[in-house]
Amino acid sequence: MSDDCDEETPEQRLERLGLVPIVLPVFGTFEPAIRTGDLVHTMGHWPLDGDRAVTGKLGADLSVDDGREAARLAALALVGTLAQKLDGLVQVQQIAALHVVINATAEFTEHTAVADAGSDLLVSVFGEAGRHARLAVGAPSLPADLALEITAVVLVAGH
Amino acid sequence: MSDDCDEETPEQRLERLGLVPIVLPVFGTFEPAIRTGDLVHTMGHWPLDGDRAVTGKLGADLSVDDGREAARLAALALVGTLAQKLDGLVQVQQIAALHVVINATAEFTEHTAVADAGSDLLVSVFGEAGRHARLAVGAPSLPADLALEITAVVLVAGH
Amino acid sequence: MSDDCDEETPEQRLERLGLVPIVLPVFGTFEPAIRTGDLVHTMGHWPLDGDRAVTGKLGADLSVDDGREAARLAALALVGTLAQKLDGLVQVQQIAALHVVINATAEFTEHTAVADAGSDLLVSVFGEAGRHARLAVGAPSLPADLALEITAVVLVAGH
Repeated sequence: MSDDCDEETPEQRLERLGLVPIVLPVFGTFEPAIRTGDLVHTMGHWPLDGDRAVTGKLGADLSVDDGREAARLAALALVGTLAQKLDGLVQVQQIAALHVVINATAEFTEHTAVADAGSDLLVSVFGEAGRHARLAVGAPSLPADLALEITAVVLVAGH
Repeated sequence: MSDDCDEETPEQRLERLGLVPIVLPVFGTFEPAIRTGDLVHTMGHWPLDGDRAVTGKLGADLSVDDGREAARLAALALVGTLAQKLDGLVQVQQIAALHVVINATAEFTEHTAVADAGSDLLVSVFGEAGRHARLAVGAPSLPADLALEITAVVLVAGH
Repeated sequence: MSDDCDEETPEQRLERLGLVPIVLPVFGTFEPAIRTGDLVHTMGHWPLDGDRAVTGKLGADLSVDDGREAARLAALALVGTLAQKLDGLVQVQQIAALHVVINATAEFTEHTAVADAGSDLLVSVFGEAGRHARLAVGAPSLPADLALEITAVVLVAGH
C-alpha cells in the first residue's frame, strides 16, 4: 500500500489507463445512487455506453470475453455514478460490497471469470479502496436483455 | 420538494390514496426487518394480501400488468413492515436501496416496467424520501412460485 | 433472552454443537468481508468444505435435504469469515440481512425450506444476534455449478 500508485487519485489513474467513466441514463422512478451518512447504495449498472449495449445471455449468445467486456462497461458506469454523486472520486474510501448479476443459461458456470473483469477494473481505478466483498450469480433474464448488472455499497468520506 | 404533498405524513398520503399497508406472515427463522443504528434492512416481501397471492412467472403465466400489481402489493407489504418496525412512517428518511427479484422466463425483458410500479408506489407514499437506488433482475423460480420479491435498505431517524 | 444459552459465547455454542467454522479459499480480486464502521458486508459464501463441494441444481440434481446441507455448509463458511475478520464472534451484534441465492430450476418452489437450514444454523451459533431479515431467491446457474450462495450484512461491535 506504499507503492507509487497510491499517490495517484482515481481520476489520475483513469487518465493513465485511458478509461472514461460512463454516465448512464436513468429510466424510471429511481436514483443512480443514494447516500445515507457514510454509505452510498447504487442502482444496478448496465453495460451501456452511448449507443453501444452488450445484450444477450452468457452460455448462449455471449462468450466469457463478451461478458468480461460487459462487466468492464458496467463497472465504468458505476465509476461514473460515483463521480457524479461525490466531490471527487478520492471520497471513495472503500467499495464495501459488489453484487454482479449475470444474464446466463442454466448451464453457465463461469460467473467468476466474468465478474472478475469488473472487480479488476475497480481495483485499477481505486487501488486498495476498490477491493470489495462480492456476490456473483446468474439470472435467467435481465431488463432489455442486457448481459449483466452491477450494484455496489460504497463507504465514502466527507460531506 | 416544497409542494403541498410534503406537508402530508406518509400515513395521510396512504389514506388519501386509499392504500392499506399489508402485514405479511413470516414463515421461518427470520425477521421482517432488522434495525442497526440508522439503517433498516428488510426481508424479501412477497405479493400476498390475506388469502390473495400473485403467483407464476412473468413471460409465461403473468402479463406485465399482473407483475405491476404484484409489485404494488409487495411494496405495500414493505410499507407495512416499516410501519410495524418504526414509531410512525415519518421516521423513514430515505429508502436507500430497493432490490426487486422477478420470477421470469429466459425471454422476459420488461423487468423495469414491473419494478416501476413498486417504485412509484413508494414515492407516492413517502414523497422524495421514497426515491431509491434500484436493482431489478429475473429469477428462474421464487419461494412458493410467487411472482416477485422486494427487499430494501432504509435510512431511518430517531429511536 | 435471559435463558442459559445467552451466557455462552458463539465459540462455546459451536463447540457444544460439534460445529467447525469453514474458511473458504478466495479466487479473484475480492475480499471475504469488508468492514465499514459498524457494518460488515460479506462475499457470497459457497457450500465448500475442503475437498467437498455441493454442486447441482435444486429441483433437478439435488433434493431439498441436499440443499439444506448446502445451506448449513455455506452458513458455517460465513461464520468462518466472521471469525477471521473479527476479534471473537462475540463482536457479532446482529446479522442484519441474509441473502440466499439457490441454484434452481424454473419449477422449484421450496427455497424457504432450503434457506431455513442456514438461518437456523446462524441462530444456533449466535442466539438472538443471529436472527436476520432474509431474501431467498432462485438463480438459473451459479459459479462452478455450486448449489447456493449466502451473503450477509452484519452489525459488529468494538474495533
